[in-house]
Amino acid sequence: MTEAEERRPEAGKELDRIIFFSDAVFAIAITILVLDIRVPDGLSPTELPAVVLGLGPRYVSYLISFLVLAVYWQAHHRAFRPIRSYDGTLVWLNFLFLMAVAFLPFPTSLLGEYSGEQLSVVIYAANAAVASLLLISISWYATSRHRLVAPDIDDEEERIRRLQGLAVPVVFLLSIGVSFFSPMAAMYSWLLLSVTDPLVRRLWSR
Amino acid sequence: MTEAEERRPEAGKELDRIIFFSDAVFAIAITILVLDIRVPDGLSPTELPAVVLGLGPRYVSYLISFLVLAVYWQAHHRAFRPIRSYDGTLVWLNFLFLMAVAFLPFPTSLLGEYSGEQLSVVIYAANAAVASLLLISISWYATSRHRLVAPDIDDEEERIRRLQGLAVPVVFLLSIGVSFFSPMAAMYSWLLLSVTDPLVRRLWSR
Amino acid sequence: MTEAEERRPEAGKELDRIIFFSDAVFAIAITILVLDIRVPDGLSPTELPAVVLGLGPRYVSYLISFLVLAVYWQAHHRAFRPIRSYDGTLVWLNFLFLMAVAFLPFPTSLLGEYSGEQLSVVIYAANAAVASLLLISISWYATSRHRLVAPDIDDEEERIRRLQGLAVPVVFLLSIGVSFFSPMAAMYSWLLLSVTDPLVRRLWSR
Amino acid sequence: MTEAEERRPEAGKELDRIIFFSDAVFAIAITILVLDIRVPDGLSPTELPAVVLGLGPRYVSYLISFLVLAVYWQAHHRAFRPIRSYDGTLVWLNFLFLMAVAFLPFPTSLLGEYSGEQLSVVIYAANAAVASLLLISISWYATSRHRLVAPDIDDEEERIRRLQGLAVPVVFLLSIGVSFFSPMAAMYSWLLLSVTDPLVRRLWSR
Repeated sequence: MTEAEERRPEAGKELDRIIFFSDAVFAIAITILVLDIRVPDGLSPTELPAVVLGLGPRYVSYLISFLVLAVYWQAHHRAFRPIRSYDGTLVWLNFLFLMAVAFLPFPTSLLGEYSGEQLSVVIYAANAAVASLLLISISWYATSRHRLVAPDIDDEEERIRRLQGLAVPVVFLLSIGVSFFSPMAAMYSWLLLSVTDPLVRRLWSR
Repeated sequence: MTEAEERRPEAGKELDRIIFFSDAVFAIAITILVLDIRVPDGLSPTELPAVVLGLGPRYVSYLISFLVLAVYWQAHHRAFRPIRSYDGTLVWLNFLFLMAVAFLPFPTSLLGEYSGEQLSVVIYAANAAVASLLLISISWYATSRHRLVAPDIDDEEERIRRLQGLAVPVVFLLSIGVSFFSPMAAMYSWLLLSVTDPLVRRLWSR
Repeated sequence: MTEAEERRPEAGKELDRIIFFSDAVFAIAITILVLDIRVPDGLSPTELPAVVLGLGPRYVSYLISFLVLAVYWQAHHRAFRPIRSYDGTLVWLNFLFLMAVAFLPFPTSLLGEYSGEQLSVVIYAANAAVASLLLISISWYATSRHRLVAPDIDDEEERIRRLQGLAVPVVFLLSIGVSFFSPMAAMYSWLLLSVTDPLVRRLWSR
Repeated sequence: MTEAEERRPEAGKELDRIIFFSDAVFAIAITILVLDIRVPDGLSPTELPAVVLGLGPRYVSYLISFLVLAVYWQAHHRAFRPIRSYDGTLVWLNFLFLMAVAFLPFPTSLLGEYSGEQLSVVIYAANAAVASLLLISISWYATSRHRLVAPDIDDEEERIRRLQGLAVPVVFLLSIGVSFFSPMAAMYSWLLLSVTDPLVRRLWSR
C-alpha cells in the first residue's frame, strides 16, 4: 500500500475491516477448539463414562486456550483502540499476529493429548509468547512518534498498557524454563496472567 | 479494562464489536454441527441406505442443537438490546457464556452417537443449563441498579424476560433428574422450552 | 419477541444483525465444503496422481454446492432487500432456512463419495428444495399485505421475483423424479437453474 | 439482478455486504488451515518429538498459504476500494474468485503431505494462478470504461496496480514450468512475489 492510501477519508472504514477480519479469525479459532474433543464411535455403554472422563486433559487445554484467546482478543482491541490510520507495515504485523493466533489450535491439541510432556508445554508457551510479542510490536509501531494514533492519546495510560502487555510473553517464556523441571508446574504458572494486569498498574503507580 | 474506558464515546462501537464477535461464534458453532454427520467412504450401494438411515439419532441431535442455539442467539440479543455500555466484568461474563455455546458441539456429538445413554443427556443438559445461567447473569449484572443499561428501560418487561430466561435452566436441570428414569423422556422434556415464553408471560399478567 | 419490539427505532440495526448472522452462516458453509476433499496420508509418489484424479466426483459436488450456495445467498439478499422490520416469525423462518443451508455440506459429501447413487441425488435435491421453499416462505410472509416491507415496494417486480424463486424448488423436485430413471441425468437437470431467471422474466413480460 | 438494482441508494450497503462476505470467507479459509496439522493420538513420549518435527513440510505449507491468502486479501481490498456500485457480473466474478480462495486449503494439504511431488506444486500454483486471474478480471471489469468505479479514479495508479496484480499469476504459472525441473525450486520461486510490487512500480516510473 502506498503512503497516500492511509490518509484517504475511507481510512477509518478500511481500518474497521482490518479489525473485523481479525475478530473473525479470533471467533473461528476459538470456536473450532471444540473439534478436538471427540469420543470414538461404537463404544459400549459401559466403556463410555471412562472414555468421557479420560478426556480430562482435553477439557483443560480447551479451557486454557479459550481463556488465552479471550485475553488476546481484549488485548488486540486495546491495542487498536487509539489507532486512527494504518499502513502496509501495520497490516503485515497484524497478519503475522493472526497467524500465531490461528495456529494456537495445534499446540492446544498437543497439550490435550500429550499433557504431561514438556514438548507440548514448550510449543504452547512459544506460540503464545510469539503472538503476544507480535501484538506488542503492533502497539509499539502504531504509537511510537504518534505514527498512527490520535495526537491526544494518553501517553501515560499507553505506557502502563505496554508494560501490562509485556508481562504476557514474560510469563510464557519463563514457563518454558520451568517446564525443564516440571511440565505441570509450567502450565500452572500461566495462571499468573490473571494477576499481572492489576499488579503492573499498582507497581507503576508507586 | 479501566472504569474510564466504558464511558468513552466509542463505547457504542466497542459494544457492537462484542456483539459481532458473539454472533460470529454462534454462526460458526451452528454451522460446524453438520461436520458430525458423516457417512464412511467405500460402502457398497446396497449398504448405503441402511447407513444413511442409521444416522437417525445424529439428525435429531443436529436439529436439537440448531434449535437450542437459535433460541440462545435470540435470548443473547434480547439480553444485549437494553445494554448501552460495558465493563470488564460484562466482557468476561460474555466470554464464559460463549465458551459454553462453543462447547455445545461436543455434547451434540455425544447425543448423536450415544443417544440412549443417560451420560449423553446429562452432559448435554448440564452444558445447556450452564450457558443459560451465564446469560441470565449477564442480564442481571447489566440491569441491576441500571448499571449498564439506558435509564428509561422498561423494568416490568425486563422482569418478565428474566423469568422467561430462568425457565430455560430450570427445564434443563429438571431433565437431568428425569434422565435417571428415562434418558429419552428427559430429551422430550426439552420440548417444554417451546411453550415457556408465552406461559411465563401469561402467569405474570395475572 | 413481542409486537412492540419490531417497531422500535433500533429495528433496522437488529435486522442488519439477522442478515449479518445469515451471511456468516453462508460464508462458513461455503468455506468448509473443501474439508471434504482429502487425499489420504502416506501414498507413494506413483499412487498419488490416480488418487487425486479419482477425487473427480468430489470436485464436481464441491462446484455444485458452491454455485448453489452462491445462488441462494443472492436470493436471500433479494428476499431481504425490501424488508424494513421483523418479528418472531420472520426470525424463525430465517433460522429454519439457515438450518437447511448449513446442512447442505452433508448431501454434498454424499454426492461426492456416492455420486452415481440415486439416494445421494434425492437427498441433495430434497435438501436444496426445502431450503428454497423456506426462502420463498420468508419472502411471502414479509410481503403479503405489506407486513414487513416498505409500502412503496414494486409489487410487479416482487411477483416476478417470487416466480423466479419458485422455479428453484420446482427444478429440484422434478430432478427427484428424473433420478428414478438416471441419477446422472437428474444432476444435469440442475443446470436448468442457470436459465430459469431470464426465462421466467421473459414469459411474464408477454 | 436487474440493471435497476445497482443504482438504488442502498447500493453502497449491498456492496459492503459483498465485501463483508468475502472477508468472512478469507477469515475462515485462513483459520481452518491449521486443521491440517495433526499429531496422531497415542504416541509414546519418545516418539512424539520425531513426529512433531516430521510435520515440517506441513508448517511450511501453512506458512505459504497464510501469506498467499494475506496477499490476496489485501489485493481484494485494493481491487474493491475504487468500486462504488455492483451488478450481477461483478457478484459472480467475486464468487468464482472466492471459490478459488476457499479451495486453497486442499492444495495446501497436498503440499504439506506430498511436499516433494511435482503434482502438489502444480495443483497449488494452478489454484493460486486462477484465483489471481479472477481477481484481475474483477478489477478489469469494474474499471474498464469506468463501469462501476468513481469517475475521479486515479487511472495512472489503477494501471500500476493492474500490472502489479498481473505479476502474481505470471509468477505462479512460470513456477509450473520450473516444477518440471525441480518441485522445490518452483516453491522457492514463489518468494519472488515479495518483490514484484515495488519492482513493477519502479519499472513503470521510468
